[in-house]
Amino acid sequence: MVEHWLTEKHTAGYSVNWKIKETLHKETTPFQDLEIVEMEEFGRALILDGIVQTTVKDEFMYHEMLAQVPLFTHPNPEKVLVVGGGDGGTIREVMKHKEVKEAYLIEIDTKVIAACKEFLPETSYALEDERCHIIIEDGIKYLKEHQNEFDIILIDSSDPIGPAMKLFVKEFYQDIYGALKEDGLFVAQTGSPIFNKDLLRTVYEAIDSIFPVAKTYLTTVPTYVGGFWTFTLGSKKFDPTEIKLKEYNFINRYWNPEIHKEAFSLPEFIKDVLR
Amino acid sequence: MVEHWLTEKHTAGYSVNWKIKETLHKETTPFQDLEIVEMEEFGRALILDGIVQTTVKDEFMYHEMLAQVPLFTHPNPEKVLVVGGGDGGTIREVMKHKEVKEAYLIEIDTKVIAACKEFLPETSYALEDERCHIIIEDGIKYLKEHQNEFDIILIDSSDPIGPAMKLFVKEFYQDIYGALKEDGLFVAQTGSPIFNKDLLRTVYEAIDSIFPVAKTYLTTVPTYVGGFWTFTLGSKKFDPTEIKLKEYNFINRYWNPEIHKEAFSLPEFIKDVLR
Repeated sequence: MVEHWLTEKHTAGYSVNWKIKETLHKETTPFQDLEIVEMEEFGRALILDGIVQTTVKDEFMYHEMLAQVPLFTHPNPEKVLVVGGGDGGTIREVMKHKEVKEAYLIEIDTKVIAACKEFLPETSYALEDERCHIIIEDGIKYLKEHQNEFDIILIDSSDPIGPAMKLFVKEFYQDIYGALKEDGLFVAQTGSPIFNKDLLRTVYEAIDSIFPVAKTYLTTVPTYVGGFWTFTLGSKKFDPTEIKLKEYNFINRYWNPEIHKEAFSLPEFIKDVLR
Repeated sequence: MVEHWLTEKHTAGYSVNWKIKETLHKETTPFQDLEIVEMEEFGRALILDGIVQTTVKDEFMYHEMLAQVPLFTHPNPEKVLVVGGGDGGTIREVMKHKEVKEAYLIEIDTKVIAACKEFLPETSYALEDERCHIIIEDGIKYLKEHQNEFDIILIDSSDPIGPAMKLFVKEFYQDIYGALKEDGLFVAQTGSPIFNKDLLRTVYEAIDSIFPVAKTYLTTVPTYVGGFWTFTLGSKKFDPTEIKLKEYNFINRYWNPEIHKEAFSLPEFIKDVLR
């Protein structure tokens, strides 16, 4: 019997293999090669250009930490923008908060949304929420056209390779600053502090030079190999480690009030990257 | 040119590949196949029975978190026992504490110590410390022969497969209890909360049934794939999250006072494993 394995190269000397039970969907969109597969170990997964973006088994670790930290930091987030994240996982986390009146998902590739709606319902179902508005457009262009409008912006991008590199530069963070209200805040996924540490330092310095509050926090996602994964938050007013957390009555699988504050405590070698 | 890659299977559907620049040493000891290799991405590494035990790039994340948490919890640890850990990394962390008068390393395989002394000096150098006593013996036997003797015991074992399974059962934790002084405490590495969660639950329950204080804490070690890695602490008296931390004047690369307490805050899905 033929075994199918997907190998993802993290560096020239380090790679990971996932055994594939079934390929459920495969297409080349105007932007990328898209596949939905059923993995033996991690369940259904979205693969873009050969890189595993999200798996049913562990996507909650990433999506909760990207969204819940800023959503709990802002006392009244009514209008939220998500750039990227066509799988819907980040929107699902945003929609848990009743005070959110409108959420906008700006995704460049409509095919990602269609495939995730069909094959990853546990991740994508909140895209159907009537408060969620999907706009197929380039996130950079969209941000430049909106000023002083959002309480929270979440950058749910793919890895900083090729076109996505434009989401990891100072000009982009300045556009985010402009699109946020005067007490707004944003979070971006900022990659591995081990395999991408120069980028993390550059990104942190750029955000720190623009926002009064700039803080990197950590999570761990098995799929994003290298152990640690970072998010960096830029805020005009609220400090995530100093605010009083809101009450909540929904279920999380990763985030909780202790994790909220403690994700900002960094091991010494990661502090060194940011110093 | 022929490329050498080491593939380590974590489950039937998930594996990791390391590119090998050079095999520095290779032998079959009475206990296991032992190799020291130079990896392209992670530097020199110790491999036992095909499983990567320790790499120069990230061993500090594991060794500091195994040793520093209990060493900072006990106010005056004078006599410390390490079971396993022939690479010397745990002993190196123990020896940073001046109040430690004697440390005993109980390793079953003398060849591991010899190879690590020769090829992994950054990890093994503290084995030469005059306070460190190396005893080549079975850890289980040694513990049964010692009563009320140690302030701290550290279980630096390999994965719970084959012979090492005996280090993950209730009888072993009872022997540890007996070998500790009346205010002693111990920590064992207790594996991945994702790939080995049934074992983690069983081990936690066993330790919790014997020790007044039983707590699982987390770290992340890229080499031990699956993101999270757990340690479980059993203590007769001191609670690691409630004590006042001692002053210190040595350098760590991972552990710091914030990490000490916050490593005990678990994401919801790991709390669920232990409930």
